[in-house]
Amino acid sequence: MGMNSNDILAAIRFDDSGLVPAIAQQHDTGEVLMMAWMNSESVAETLATGHVCYWSRSRRAFWRKGESSGHVQHLVEMRIDCDGDTLLLLVDQTGPACHTNRRNCFYRATRGGKLVTIAEPVE
Amino acid sequence: MGMNSNDILAAIRFDDSGLVPAIAQQHDTGEVLMMAWMNSESVAETLATGHVCYWSRSRRAFWRKGESSGHVQHLVEMRIDCDGDTLLLLVDQTGPACHTNRRNCFYRATRGGKLVTIAEPVE
Repeated sequence: MGMNSNDILAAIRFDDSGLVPAIAQQHDTGEVLMMAWMNSESVAETLATGHVCYWSRSRRAFWRKGESSGHVQHLVEMRIDCDGDTLLLLVDQTGPACHTNRRNCFYRATRGGKLVTIAEPVE
Repeated sequence: MGMNSNDILAAIRFDDSGLVPAIAQQHDTGEVLMMAWMNSESVAETLATGHVCYWSRSRRAFWRKGESSGHVQHLVEMRIDCDGDTLLLLVDQTGPACHTNRRNCFYRATRGGKLVTIAEPVE
């Protein structure tokens, strides 16, 4: 994409750890796929390459989504909320987004007073 | 709703501040409305009443969405992600979700290398 990222970087209010939560949504279906974190470098890389790059808090490293699995996220549009502390990434997800091999990470729901599994891994 | 919240409370991995991020999504259109935070008490209240209650980090108080504006969020379903550290709230939003009187909070987008406003306040 080669997008200049100065505008949005200036608008983001990163937290005390230098991170901002980023919600990934499939651009055409509206499905919420996952939520992960970004730092300023991963935001800039994502805008420059058009491939979503998060920051892994557990590994303390860049997490280029799909780098090992092939389940990449192509960025369609990056949005920012009213107070600048959350990003919404409209993406085109290749394959499942979740490490459990499910299409999205939100496969457990409260139904009938119980937490139930509502989606199975893709074959 | 009167839902027993033990199952989901046990599954949530609250952060060091006792909070978990919660994404609100309009249940029928898929529109991502906002992201805010919950603590265990606000999760339990939301499940018990069926009206979404967040925790305001800035005011350090419960934030019963729509209490002053009337723009309440009726909970349709609460979901939790694979590692238990993010909630997805499927809601039915009355009126605009954003304090700017826009339908959702993500009204700024990166287009053509610039951050532009893509939605205006509801009249």
